[in-house]
Amino acid sequence: MSAKIRLYVEHPLGAGQSVPLDRDQAHYLFGVMRQTVGAQLLLFNGEDGEWRAEVAEASKRSGVLICQEQTRPLVLPPDLWLLFAPIKKVRTDFIVEKAAEMGAARILPVQTEFTNSDRIRQDRLQAHAVEAAEQCGGTYVPEVADLQKLSRLLDHWPEERQLMFCDEAEVGSALALASETAAQAPWAIVIGPEGGFSEAERKRLHALPQSHVVSLGPRILRADTAAVAALTVWQQRYGDWG
Amino acid sequence: MSAKIRLYVEHPLGAGQSVPLDRDQAHYLFGVMRQTVGAQLLLFNGEDGEWRAEVAEASKRSGVLICQEQTRPLVLPPDLWLLFAPIKKVRTDFIVEKAAEMGAARILPVQTEFTNSDRIRQDRLQAHAVEAAEQCGGTYVPEVADLQKLSRLLDHWPEERQLMFCDEAEVGSALALASETAAQAPWAIVIGPEGGFSEAERKRLHALPQSHVVSLGPRILRADTAAVAALTVWQQRYGDWG
Repeated sequence: MSAKIRLYVEHPLGAGQSVPLDRDQAHYLFGVMRQTVGAQLLLFNGEDGEWRAEVAEASKRSGVLICQEQTRPLVLPPDLWLLFAPIKKVRTDFIVEKAAEMGAARILPVQTEFTNSDRIRQDRLQAHAVEAAEQCGGTYVPEVADLQKLSRLLDHWPEERQLMFCDEAEVGSALALASETAAQAPWAIVIGPEGGFSEAERKRLHALPQSHVVSLGPRILRADTAAVAALTVWQQRYGDWG
Repeated sequence: MSAKIRLYVEHPLGAGQSVPLDRDQAHYLFGVMRQTVGAQLLLFNGEDGEWRAEVAEASKRSGVLICQEQTRPLVLPPDLWLLFAPIKKVRTDFIVEKAAEMGAARILPVQTEFTNSDRIRQDRLQAHAVEAAEQCGGTYVPEVADLQKLSRLLDHWPEERQLMFCDEAEVGSALALASETAAQAPWAIVIGPEGGFSEAERKRLHALPQSHVVSLGPRILRADTAAVAALTVWQQRYGDWG
């Protein structure tokens, strides 16, 4: 049994349910991974948990899997958003991968004053999140939103959502313990771009009533390092690492 | 003034000290970065802090800088080692970069039972650590050791050095508070390879008197993600993030 293959599918999963494969999935499973009829693998769809399934039909361009039994229930990550400013391609890909692994529920690329990029390949980033979920054993795939302006997002910031603001100008401030209400609320983390936030952005983020400022140590971290470090700080304090 | 250029040099630094540049440094500074005589930049050598220096001579293949004033004192990272099993090239490079940014003092690639690589390019990894130190504003460059067997390293484990063992089989164990003596001691972090540790290795690491087991959450992290997460946990608890 090759239980190491985990595949994300956009199809309902349940006992006896048959799951048709598209051309890419068939190519991966039968061409690349050399699976044949009778082979077993794990499926998840972000909604029905993880299921063991068996290959019932296999051809070059299509295939059918039959679900057998649930191997893990659906486990949703905490209601945590990660806001980050897209940077170079490889590091942006890494941030999305890391956010999925570390258990962010939603990933929001934002344009800041010092962000160069004015577009992202949302579909490619979403595919990275799927791949990370397949790899890390998660049963959930975070949604990658399309690029939006940070200022607009803050204009309509949800009243209850707390914001952990990683300000590299604030060396040495540990994350202060939030009130019980804030600790139970939905959260977001915002990571600055490589050039830092503008003074106007910093002021605005500091002034936001939902804002919790935190320092990520005395060295300047690259954005992808900062994303993992910030997610670690939050997950330990308020998330599902308990 | 282009104070954003930070260069690591292997030469003593001090007021009035002249620093000769080798061919690569001259090419970078004068060819790539278009600096000329009179330009100012920042130097550090891992021992004398950070200095502002001025270009006194510039040619294609050589150059001389003159130190003017110290801009930052030497700040050593905590006495923390990072042990990790080398993986694919890109991710190994990332681990070294991240370890330098996050403030590890020494980086030790180790061969475990499930590690495929039997050699590393120590010089290339050391160059990555230098580049990360230049970029993150640190005044210290961690040493990258040559590849060695984890089992041999454990045979001669220093008695006082505490070991944070990130065991992915131990879901949910937060880092227990160490005794006052252990908290003040030198430390190391060990990150498993992508295939995990062998049962024999896990037993040995658990049995080590200096061992402190910790979980990095309910999802399986890639080795490079785990390195940053583990360094964050440690730096917050015992390191220089206070």
